[in-house]
Amino acid sequence: MENESILIHGAQVLDAAGPRRGSVLIEGNTIEEVSDALSPGDADTVIDGHGKLLIPGLVNTHTHLSMTLFRGMADDLPLDRWLNDHIWPAEAHLNGEYCHAGALLGCVEMIRSGTTAFNDMYFYMDDVARAVDEAGLRCVLSHGMIDLGDDDKMRAEIRESLRIIRECHGMADGRIKVALGPHSPYTCSEELLRETARLAAEHGVGIHIHVSETENEVREVSEAHGMSPVEYLDSTGVLGPGTVAAHCVWLKENEMEILSERGVKVSHNPSSNMKLASGISPVPELMGRGVNVSIGTDGAASNNNLDMFEEMKTASLLQKVSLHDPTALPAMDVFRMATVNGAKALGVNSGLIEEGGLADIVVLNTRRPHLTPWRKPASHLVYSASGADVDTVICDGRILLLEGELKVLDEEYVMELAEGAAEELTSKQ
Amino acid sequence: MENESILIHGAQVLDAAGPRRGSVLIEGNTIEEVSDALSPGDADTVIDGHGKLLIPGLVNTHTHLSMTLFRGMADDLPLDRWLNDHIWPAEAHLNGEYCHAGALLGCVEMIRSGTTAFNDMYFYMDDVARAVDEAGLRCVLSHGMIDLGDDDKMRAEIRESLRIIRECHGMADGRIKVALGPHSPYTCSEELLRETARLAAEHGVGIHIHVSETENEVREVSEAHGMSPVEYLDSTGVLGPGTVAAHCVWLKENEMEILSERGVKVSHNPSSNMKLASGISPVPELMGRGVNVSIGTDGAASNNNLDMFEEMKTASLLQKVSLHDPTALPAMDVFRMATVNGAKALGVNSGLIEEGGLADIVVLNTRRPHLTPWRKPASHLVYSASGADVDTVICDGRILLLEGELKVLDEEYVMELAEGAAEELTSKQ
Ligand SMILES: [Zn+2]
Ligand SMILES: [Zn+2]
Repeated sequence: MENESILIHGAQVLDAAGPRRGSVLIEGNTIEEVSDALSPGDADTVIDGHGKLLIPGLVNTHTHLSMTLFRGMADDLPLDRWLNDHIWPAEAHLNGEYCHAGALLGCVEMIRSGTTAFNDMYFYMDDVARAVDEAGLRCVLSHGMIDLGDDDKMRAEIRESLRIIRECHGMADGRIKVALGPHSPYTCSEELLRETARLAAEHGVGIHIHVSETENEVREVSEAHGMSPVEYLDSTGVLGPGTVAAHCVWLKENEMEILSERGVKVSHNPSSNMKLASGISPVPELMGRGVNVSIGTDGAASNNNLDMFEEMKTASLLQKVSLHDPTALPAMDVFRMATVNGAKALGVNSGLIEEGGLADIVVLNTRRPHLTPWRKPASHLVYSASGADVDTVICDGRILLLEGELKVLDEEYVMELAEGAAEELTSKQ
Repeated sequence: MENESILIHGAQVLDAAGPRRGSVLIEGNTIEEVSDALSPGDADTVIDGHGKLLIPGLVNTHTHLSMTLFRGMADDLPLDRWLNDHIWPAEAHLNGEYCHAGALLGCVEMIRSGTTAFNDMYFYMDDVARAVDEAGLRCVLSHGMIDLGDDDKMRAEIRESLRIIRECHGMADGRIKVALGPHSPYTCSEELLRETARLAAEHGVGIHIHVSETENEVREVSEAHGMSPVEYLDSTGVLGPGTVAAHCVWLKENEMEILSERGVKVSHNPSSNMKLASGISPVPELMGRGVNVSIGTDGAASNNNLDMFEEMKTASLLQKVSLHDPTALPAMDVFRMATVNGAKALGVNSGLIEEGGLADIVVLNTRRPHLTPWRKPASHLVYSASGADVDTVICDGRILLLEGELKVLDEEYVMELAEGAAEELTSKQ
């Protein structure tokens, strides 16, 4: 299945360094050369890049992939009813097969919309890893640990996390890495958080955690610990350069300082924060303090898709209107968040079109009415494109989508499998 | 080109009345029958609706179609620099051919994303009408009148409006109607507004106007007239059931009351309001007072696409986050805004799938990964779909798009024409 070498010839290239013209040669899983001097004879497989835009594969830094099964199950509800009456009862019936099916569906959706790497926290993560392996994508997976102060539960959660590290960390030629996933400061005991910090160092893995998503959470944590969530988390040792903190909506000045000093990677999830009415993350302020902010869609139960193009536009527009400033979060900034910042958050050498980088590449068809006239590529990508403009996707040097045709997985079968799993989950409630 | 009769067989149907199953028979430009009893032998042309969702064509109630030529020309700028340094200089070089090209491009984009009717205000509107006629869409067009208190300019603007009414009102088998388009309370003299009200009554046409888009505008109008914009407009007689007021972001309680009492139709433009940092319209409050609120994309210079699916999601999410209420503007409400409310705003008998209504119909392909599992159609339409899921479009009983293939206009030619026009406009600056 893997190509010896692939040449994308004569495309326009855009990454965090700006737009340029060039051909890109991939050898194995690596970008070998970016140059005008390459000719079609230089590779086994040649993709014509004329009328196309070549960008780094997008990186989705906060997902719960198997929740695609819950897409559209419940919307427009208060958070407590949404969780208590719909999400949690459905999750109680999950099993590995369902999570595998939901993850496969999520992988197909991400490939079709130009995402090549993601950061996932959920359950039955070895089954999720199996789906990602089959799909050819890159990811960091974490078992979502919740102990609610129960000692037995805590030990079981840590055991499961260690099992996932043992079984999945480094699998699929290294495309799959594992992190520790303490769910949040309000669902994890202090001991679990401290143990997470210790184990992350011991095993050399990252941490993925929800932080300050809602005002309620901030109140709860402050009452329980006499500290704001970021202060509290910092006291347990879980905040460091290998930590991805999702949401970070409600932050005080000193919390932003802590995130910056610790080198924490923030994942901004604007659609989910809007749909659940959680609030608006102070993204420009975080970036102004040097924090690496990337973008995540969150799960399909609160978005309800995994389209990172839509998420880029929403991120920019939300900051502009909330800050009363049309210059806030301009197109190039938000494009950097979705590419190179995401790659940094996941600790992978992708997110740029440069020699020596991993060959995670997306090619878009720019000859579309809504992308005409073709001017500033970043503007069109962020403000007018959608995932449906993605034409070709390469991850780790392997072609996953070629001119709209999926080269991995059986799309019809995956949709049927997911439909069946969702049906069974609903009927069990 | 026109079909005698078209049957869409065995589709799921969704309109403001809710979801149901059925087949839809179109005779001429009218929905003749919606029923389970229809069989494929009943029509000249049969479209298989299995695995598809049939909805009313979406209605975009505030556009400046020819501004597709300015897409991506300037973004992320303060409003005054955006207007003074980019939009107005470019507009100074417009002509009928350019406006025709931009309108053709906009029509193709709207057809591909499921919009069948729209409300357009701009310049060279007879050339826009020509494009709409060729595209097969339905619209209300208005020449944007701006006199800035200059008497000669006022007379010229009224002359041009009357010319457009004379030449275009009722053309294309009645698909094209004309309205009067005083640009806004701060760019039109009081006399022009009064004359607009008089002429609208005399000619039996509607009015299309920008109202209270920015805080600045409210301040200016209040200082000049000692009244808030809606009070002032009401005093000139331009507010009535035939008036579409775009934006309506900055409204006091009594202004909402006036809009409600006069039966004014409000067009909500969330993406444009966010991108230009104008503010957030109090949509649920307006709807609570019985105001007919519909959805518009505004021009492609401030959005930057014409995708009404994206606009529906943005409308809902923006209200939820700004009101701290996840139940605000639920999926069905926003779907009603984009269909039946839009049709009411334009005064056309479409927006529902019911016998006797105009055959403006969109069919979506629901077998897509991001629409799986298929549950509540309204949720998927609003929160997960995009214009790219549109499969087939019928307007006034004529098939404009069939299973992804455009049946009107030459798409490649339209894109080239628009690209050339945009190029010339830019080089003239
Ligand atoms: Zn989450
Ligand atoms: Zn406008």
